[in-house]
Amino acid sequence: MRKLAPNPDDLGRLDLDDILGTINEEVRRRFGEGEVADYIPKLAEVPKDRFGMALAMLDGRVHEVGDARERFSIQSISKVYTLTLALEAAGDALWTRVDREPSGDPYNSLIQLELEKGIPRNPFMNAGALVTADVVLSNYDDAERMLLDFMRARSGNPEVGTDDVVAKSERESGYRNVAMANFIRSYDNLHNDVQDVLDFYYQQCALRMDCVDLARSVQYLADGGRCRATGEAVTTAEGATRINSVMMIAGTYDAAGDFAYHVGLPAKSGVGGGIVAVVPRVMGLCVWSPGLDEKGNSLLGRYALHRFTRMTGLSVF
Amino acid sequence: MRKLAPNPDDLGRLDLDDILGTINEEVRRRFGEGEVADYIPKLAEVPKDRFGMALAMLDGRVHEVGDARERFSIQSISKVYTLTLALEAAGDALWTRVDREPSGDPYNSLIQLELEKGIPRNPFMNAGALVTADVVLSNYDDAERMLLDFMRARSGNPEVGTDDVVAKSERESGYRNVAMANFIRSYDNLHNDVQDVLDFYYQQCALRMDCVDLARSVQYLADGGRCRATGEAVTTAEGATRINSVMMIAGTYDAAGDFAYHVGLPAKSGVGGGIVAVVPRVMGLCVWSPGLDEKGNSLLGRYALHRFTRMTGLSVF
Amino acid sequence: MRKLAPNPDDLGRLDLDDILGTINEEVRRRFGEGEVADYIPKLAEVPKDRFGMALAMLDGRVHEVGDARERFSIQSISKVYTLTLALEAAGDALWTRVDREPSGDPYNSLIQLELEKGIPRNPFMNAGALVTADVVLSNYDDAERMLLDFMRARSGNPEVGTDDVVAKSERESGYRNVAMANFIRSYDNLHNDVQDVLDFYYQQCALRMDCVDLARSVQYLADGGRCRATGEAVTTAEGATRINSVMMIAGTYDAAGDFAYHVGLPAKSGVGGGIVAVVPRVMGLCVWSPGLDEKGNSLLGRYALHRFTRMTGLSVF
Amino acid sequence: MRKLAPNPDDLGRLDLDDILGTINEEVRRRFGEGEVADYIPKLAEVPKDRFGMALAMLDGRVHEVGDARERFSIQSISKVYTLTLALEAAGDALWTRVDREPSGDPYNSLIQLELEKGIPRNPFMNAGALVTADVVLSNYDDAERMLLDFMRARSGNPEVGTDDVVAKSERESGYRNVAMANFIRSYDNLHNDVQDVLDFYYQQCALRMDCVDLARSVQYLADGGRCRATGEAVTTAEGATRINSVMMIAGTYDAAGDFAYHVGLPAKSGVGGGIVAVVPRVMGLCVWSPGLDEKGNSLLGRYALHRFTRMTGLSVF
Repeated sequence: MRKLAPNPDDLGRLDLDDILGTINEEVRRRFGEGEVADYIPKLAEVPKDRFGMALAMLDGRVHEVGDARERFSIQSISKVYTLTLALEAAGDALWTRVDREPSGDPYNSLIQLELEKGIPRNPFMNAGALVTADVVLSNYDDAERMLLDFMRARSGNPEVGTDDVVAKSERESGYRNVAMANFIRSYDNLHNDVQDVLDFYYQQCALRMDCVDLARSVQYLADGGRCRATGEAVTTAEGATRINSVMMIAGTYDAAGDFAYHVGLPAKSGVGGGIVAVVPRVMGLCVWSPGLDEKGNSLLGRYALHRFTRMTGLSVF
Repeated sequence: MRKLAPNPDDLGRLDLDDILGTINEEVRRRFGEGEVADYIPKLAEVPKDRFGMALAMLDGRVHEVGDARERFSIQSISKVYTLTLALEAAGDALWTRVDREPSGDPYNSLIQLELEKGIPRNPFMNAGALVTADVVLSNYDDAERMLLDFMRARSGNPEVGTDDVVAKSERESGYRNVAMANFIRSYDNLHNDVQDVLDFYYQQCALRMDCVDLARSVQYLADGGRCRATGEAVTTAEGATRINSVMMIAGTYDAAGDFAYHVGLPAKSGVGGGIVAVVPRVMGLCVWSPGLDEKGNSLLGRYALHRFTRMTGLSVF
Repeated sequence: MRKLAPNPDDLGRLDLDDILGTINEEVRRRFGEGEVADYIPKLAEVPKDRFGMALAMLDGRVHEVGDARERFSIQSISKVYTLTLALEAAGDALWTRVDREPSGDPYNSLIQLELEKGIPRNPFMNAGALVTADVVLSNYDDAERMLLDFMRARSGNPEVGTDDVVAKSERESGYRNVAMANFIRSYDNLHNDVQDVLDFYYQQCALRMDCVDLARSVQYLADGGRCRATGEAVTTAEGATRINSVMMIAGTYDAAGDFAYHVGLPAKSGVGGGIVAVVPRVMGLCVWSPGLDEKGNSLLGRYALHRFTRMTGLSVF
Repeated sequence: MRKLAPNPDDLGRLDLDDILGTINEEVRRRFGEGEVADYIPKLAEVPKDRFGMALAMLDGRVHEVGDARERFSIQSISKVYTLTLALEAAGDALWTRVDREPSGDPYNSLIQLELEKGIPRNPFMNAGALVTADVVLSNYDDAERMLLDFMRARSGNPEVGTDDVVAKSERESGYRNVAMANFIRSYDNLHNDVQDVLDFYYQQCALRMDCVDLARSVQYLADGGRCRATGEAVTTAEGATRINSVMMIAGTYDAAGDFAYHVGLPAKSGVGGGIVAVVPRVMGLCVWSPGLDEKGNSLLGRYALHRFTRMTGLSVF
């Protein structure tokens, strides 16, 4: 399978720096909207008046604006990478342990999990991410080290690291995650020690990266699975297509319909205020602004993506 | 906003007739799979060994294969058109009466409706389609006639008509729909007489069209809202983008994630065995085969679409 | 089976008129609490400052206080009588069509009904009462007339009648009931015409009776199924025991646990503000006060029953 | 408040030993029905052909039959005693942390817990028992020792003890309970260390007692809160009434309606096959037979209680 590339003439006519500049101005006028996540004390300290955006084109060029070089906690964005790794390791058998349907429920609900007997709806709900974390642990030696290397290779930034204070903070307050992991384990859908799975999960969420790092780190999803920084096939073209589809359906908690409608790109958000998105055959991108809307997505980040696809016509729809 | 067109060279290299021929052969080897819908006696009489597929390109050319000229009951595919009409009439205010999130539930569940106090999850569930039917009734004189004219204009086929036996059959056995309509009415989310809404709803579902008619009838969604047959702007470019996004998220009952993963196109299915889909900037298309899978989507139709996007690379992802 | 009677000496020491007097004073000091049901306009006109209570002893004596001779709409209290009639007609086969478990849900929820495929949780939820109404319709000629005769015989009051304005008012506003009846019908769990079932249901709810009538009308449940007024065996001793058990478990919407805890008697409430209760082997009783609590039970009626069992020791527990 | 005692003449006419003999014969003919609980390996070893029954009259006499002196794991029957202790310690404030309504769900469901934000439906579901265990831990020094002393005092048997193998077995396989405890903790509705609460919970469930011990141990609930063995007021008359009411509404998992209908006594079952019941003002009783029905209650135990109330007329209804 090969994908249809967009018409290079159309793409060439877009002045992406100008568009980013316009969005940056619009967003800064709205600073203050949204609420910073407070369930992890460390995250609550991040100031709300931050906005960054970066585009990583397939040819390696980067367009960026605002606070695109300020690091933040990637949180649930990490689920894109553990899904990639779990899918590479387990192949389609992964889908016997986690489904790929929209949740219709908040990201940490146990209700669906009970109704469906321990099979999470998708790998981007917390429950599903625990299962993919478990699959990664079963298939890779020293999974924490491996994931760190993976993120450094994808971003081309050897300084990507983990915020141990955030990881520790989650470990100490995450009763809901402990509940969920034990609940999944009661259905035999975790195979490693429950605490090991949770530790790996907290570590992946506590990675710190900036918008440029993250835009580069999803570029392989725009380019048929190939990582430009290293030349590796991170996944197949088919694999990239499929991960993009799961992002579209389930990447933004229970606002997937709203994102499809207003943004129209595969995207994955995190409570640290970051959102990565993919324009197939064109670019990986990342926005960041810490204030969240009531669904847990970056309020101004979502607005920036909305404006971006409306100004560029780059919605997949 | 203007959308990025695909590279015409890439598109030109695809031999669509050859691809349709291959798919037709593959599908016919699997004839017999799936179950014909039996809740309406008239629908249960349709033989399972039928398959048609048609592509309506933006320039007006049609590619077709198999039983693409045999008419069938469009059933829920009609919801695409009533959504278009309701959105044109009510604008964004429509979304105060029906949401646009995935359902996570079967198409005729009342549970979600009660939990969310009479606001259906999306316009493609039966409940949501009753609300859009109500909006159409409130905004157009002689809505049944208007819808028939609309479908004839979109398809360019003046012989499109309603199967009164099917409509009558639904009217007589549709206790669940009567329940649903009265339930929504109890939340004041239907404004017309309950029976009038149901009658219009049964009529829209009972339209009979073939694959070529339907492929042409969704072409406007691929072409920024413009209908090639009449030259009219059926909706805006923004409107077309948005309707496509709702189809992606909710067009195939509770198999939206599976369709996104395996097909990767905005699509809407009906229990008559038809599925329409949209390749933005490229074509409208339609497949038909009466045997359904356990989610209520055409089993071989879904397979044909899966093969089509894999062979052409035309998935939006 | 015969039941243990209470010690007549203990019973003889209770001064029931004095106790009723005390309760009456306490209740009147709280007049104004609760909200009168407003979903039927006619019911909303009833003044809140009313309270009546009547005890019908097994030997025929009646103790009464306050507005015990003022008629009100019995509403869901009627479900006790249609359950009695349906159980007599269908025997234990009734329980294949309606369960006898607590609901855990509000009285008119459709959620449980869908999860349990059209089998209502108990005969005192609206859904269950529609099924018992259907059973009565299938087994008795001219069911409306028969029920009226039944209530006149039980109460010994030939003037018991139906409030046609209330019945008509329910018929015109009861979209939720229409939804429920059609929903049950979609599971083949109504055998008569849906509208006929609804009409009979509205008529039974619209019966007008006073506290003395109603206390007498549940006396058979305290006396092994025998009606003192007519000498008839309305049901068997076993039947009376079982109906009492269903009242305990499910007679007060989703406040059954609260009633068991604070009152401790089998009881059935109605949104007209009445509550009937049974002290097995001792008496039938009825309280009435129109202001409802948030669960739909008479707020001061519940308080009066609480005080009554605490002052007399007549809780079954 | 004082309760009405039953007529001593009625009671005197019952030949309880003869009745127990008849029940014993009937039950033994049905040996083999039901399934022994297998989620704890140690419990699965208990043979199914066992049946014991004991009645502890208010005057101290005991009637017994069959294997009434064989010890078994009391499991959830222990929840009656921790409820008593928690209610004594916390008073009505207990009900802000756990409700007293029927569950309508299986005993270990997390769904209701999430819908009601960490407040369990009643103290007899596992979730509710964890909360009462937490209250006991907060209010008594060395709660394990105290509970053991309490059970020895109530039963008059100083040899009552804990089966450490069962407790350890539960600790090692109870992922669902760990999930539930952490989930409740996430709503701040456990105040002690999660592992401490679980350890105390496993210990209470692992108590081993026989039918005579347990019949004596619920006698205080039949006698206005007074323990005959020690003369202590274990709870008030009001307290006993209320605990009985909670047993009626919620003591037998989601078969409360069925028990009320067929048995008609406050009762609490355990997966070890035991069921305690209370005839207010008359006796405490206990039956035991290891085979369970599909709701988790002793199948033959339930049958024995049904026969008992039908032969004696001692149903509260």
